[in-house]
Amino acid sequence: MPMFTHLDESGAARMVDVTGKDVSEREAHAEARVLMQPETLRMIIAGEHPKGDILATARIAGIMAAKRTHELIPLCHALNLTSTRVTLNGCERGTGLVIEARCKLAGRTGVEMEALTAVSVAALTVYDMCKAVDRGMEITGIRLLEKKGGRSGHWHATSPGDG
Amino acid sequence: MPMFTHLDESGAARMVDVTGKDVSEREAHAEARVLMQPETLRMIIAGEHPKGDILATARIAGIMAAKRTHELIPLCHALNLTSTRVTLNGCERGTGLVIEARCKLAGRTGVEMEALTAVSVAALTVYDMCKAVDRGMEITGIRLLEKKGGRSGHWHATSPGDG
Amino acid sequence: MPMFTHLDESGAARMVDVTGKDVSEREAHAEARVLMQPETLRMIIAGEHPKGDILATARIAGIMAAKRTHELIPLCHALNLTSTRVTLNGCERGTGLVIEARCKLAGRTGVEMEALTAVSVAALTVYDMCKAVDRGMEITGIRLLEKKGGRSGHWHATSPGDG
Amino acid sequence: MPMFTHLDESGAARMVDVTGKDVSEREAHAEARVLMQPETLRMIIAGEHPKGDILATARIAGIMAAKRTHELIPLCHALNLTSTRVTLNGCERGTGLVIEARCKLAGRTGVEMEALTAVSVAALTVYDMCKAVDRGMEITGIRLLEKKGGRSGHWHATSPGDG
Amino acid sequence: MPMFTHLDESGAARMVDVTGKDVSEREAHAEARVLMQPETLRMIIAGEHPKGDILATARIAGIMAAKRTHELIPLCHALNLTSTRVTLNGCERGTGLVIEARCKLAGRTGVEMEALTAVSVAALTVYDMCKAVDRGMEITGIRLLEKKGGRSGHWHATSPGDG
Amino acid sequence: MPMFTHLDESGAARMVDVTGKDVSEREAHAEARVLMQPETLRMIIAGEHPKGDILATARIAGIMAAKRTHELIPLCHALNLTSTRVTLNGCERGTGLVIEARCKLAGRTGVEMEALTAVSVAALTVYDMCKAVDRGMEITGIRLLEKKGGRSGHWHATSPGDG
Repeated sequence: MPMFTHLDESGAARMVDVTGKDVSEREAHAEARVLMQPETLRMIIAGEHPKGDILATARIAGIMAAKRTHELIPLCHALNLTSTRVTLNGCERGTGLVIEARCKLAGRTGVEMEALTAVSVAALTVYDMCKAVDRGMEITGIRLLEKKGGRSGHWHATSPGDG
Repeated sequence: MPMFTHLDESGAARMVDVTGKDVSEREAHAEARVLMQPETLRMIIAGEHPKGDILATARIAGIMAAKRTHELIPLCHALNLTSTRVTLNGCERGTGLVIEARCKLAGRTGVEMEALTAVSVAALTVYDMCKAVDRGMEITGIRLLEKKGGRSGHWHATSPGDG
Repeated sequence: MPMFTHLDESGAARMVDVTGKDVSEREAHAEARVLMQPETLRMIIAGEHPKGDILATARIAGIMAAKRTHELIPLCHALNLTSTRVTLNGCERGTGLVIEARCKLAGRTGVEMEALTAVSVAALTVYDMCKAVDRGMEITGIRLLEKKGGRSGHWHATSPGDG
Repeated sequence: MPMFTHLDESGAARMVDVTGKDVSEREAHAEARVLMQPETLRMIIAGEHPKGDILATARIAGIMAAKRTHELIPLCHALNLTSTRVTLNGCERGTGLVIEARCKLAGRTGVEMEALTAVSVAALTVYDMCKAVDRGMEITGIRLLEKKGGRSGHWHATSPGDG
Repeated sequence: MPMFTHLDESGAARMVDVTGKDVSEREAHAEARVLMQPETLRMIIAGEHPKGDILATARIAGIMAAKRTHELIPLCHALNLTSTRVTLNGCERGTGLVIEARCKLAGRTGVEMEALTAVSVAALTVYDMCKAVDRGMEITGIRLLEKKGGRSGHWHATSPGDG
Repeated sequence: MPMFTHLDESGAARMVDVTGKDVSEREAHAEARVLMQPETLRMIIAGEHPKGDILATARIAGIMAAKRTHELIPLCHALNLTSTRVTLNGCERGTGLVIEARCKLAGRTGVEMEALTAVSVAALTVYDMCKAVDRGMEITGIRLLEKKGGRSGHWHATSPGDG
């Protein structure tokens, strides 16, 4: 029967003990979407300021958040990411942005939470910068697309991402 | 024509100047959902540890994240929240958790980002604690339900929340 | 019957709502002790480096920790202290250091936790810097000595501090 | 003659150079106590909310603080803990809580400060959540119980802990 | 005779007590320069990527650092900036970048340190992003240009800035 | 042709991927100067409080900032420094302080940014503590003096430091 690894036998939260795990190369790829008015998307992507700071700011916010994941998620291990990339693109149907993050580590733990935190904070940053023109935006589809490395090996989502 | 308040005339990111705004009571209410296998939800809500630490940990993570919003979202003002509450409940159809946050401030800026950050980080914490049993969980429906106070007044989403 | 103000009716943790409280001048005074070998104390206070960096480092660590209390204590409100002082003195009987902190705020919440956090982190810093010569040191007597301001008014501990 | 390793020859604070130390498995076990009115303890442990959020919140606060030790204690090295556990139990004589933390690392430095910081912040969190019903609580007996690994080898306190 | 306000009568560091100061509007304007090879500047300003992420990243880093000044500078008061802007421009003679920051607050303390921290961290970010092509860059001329508000009133540097 | 390693082919900021780099011993040595009135320097170095807390506070601030470099500089990798030292000395001609920092790491990335951040924050701390007596101080000459280790090998500035 599966068990919650983050709870001990009495139900108390604990950081999972990874002392005995091997240091190996690990990677995770996650995705989020920000749904918005087509006009808002047009203003971000193709507006007056073609390379304005909205996408750059969200990209930086996502990268910086990945580094702080262990400060936000109580039972995450602190770790030293060896790579983080965040990309933002208009989705095919013009209904919003697709945000993706790829994180890498040579270490003892997976980096799924770092990639998921990066896309979440990048999405929140887009919301923040555009909320004055479109308060009804919605962040959706935050999910892991793929992970590699570690004991549980390769995993990918059953439906593919857009990126 | 609407403009992005967080960009100056050249497209450069800036913190919006609120020096001249009145100090007033402000409030925001946001929501997120974590979709999961019904069995995962059952384990969280009605499992062996009826009040185990998963919901408590997510609640605390959400409250603490609300206080750190300005460290994560580059152009958010630092502020001193006067109240934060985070609740987690199984959704009606048994397909996941509904997470809500309510934040208050007596200050010069709205607290939407604080409420949205709280639900996002609480949702990520649920993902982290349950990922070993259900890696395909998805975080969805992160949105503002209602805001009060400030110059823009009362606003609520056109479709209601579950909470 | 007294109730835990930090739990709601279902037992869930929450930040206490202080939105309606008055902004007023508040003050707290706390104390901690670090028990150590008399030789260790002698080395700190009267050694080769009479004003060496041990006490200065602990003082700075305490002041900086006071400012970060809300990041450490989950339900504490973020606040902007208007004054913090940390003092360290050898105690009368030569068995250790007495550490005191005084914090002030013009705000809506008490600052007891800030003063208690300051003395705790200052004490931990002394332990860190001296542990190579005296690993058996003990931190003890962390307590509030006095608080002023706010609805609950003036309070002082029944046994006085040394400071 | 013993020397303060955290001061250089002129008395100036420095981070100890561990570049040449071996990466090895290290462990520390620390303890703190929170003395309180028996009625307060009864409310926490055996009250209306038998698994209410007070103990869970303190546990989470302690684990999160362990990860931030190097931000609080000026000369501590940043490190990536591989395991952290925090437990809280009523002490035998009904006069308070005993808090214990166990931290592990595969690295170049000991983790005593991480374990001591975890119990200190967990204790402060208990104080914070219960202070409205019992302001005279006292935190005491913060000490290292045992450490393993590294050049200085195995060490344990001369009087045992309760845990 | 002038005295260091941040030291008490015994020479110990303290946070200056501003409890009794009036809340008023305050403003500071600071500047830094990054000297570099003309070719490096050309690549940043007029290269293949005319609005590439270097300037945007530095701008964001400066704004975010302003909000964290009190975490970096031990005796600075925490405060809630109401406005922060950071600008980067090539200097007239083509020898580097001029970075300027303007911070505002409605509060009890000046915001010089916030503006100075913003330009310093923006400059360090430029160095970081360009160091692989020009390791000999130098950051220079970090200084306050002007401050307004508070008891000490209006102050401006004797030689003007470039901005 | 040299390229900015921190930008991808489209000009977007990214954290450089160091996953494949060897763990090796790395070191960096950086310098900054704080220019001030001779009287200010005299008060710091040779005043009433010969070992007062100004230099100690700046030293501690610099060491703590080195550990937080990756939180400030958006594309810096988080890393666990094995050594950090910060020194402050009056410069020969009596016109200010020379601040130096030496950082070490056994890891995959250089530590130039850590040493540069340490001297910058130490310099800002001196400015903060002395600004009430000498607001016109200027921080200048922030530069790398030397780096060792890693693929790019040994590098030193063409004009030597004072330290």
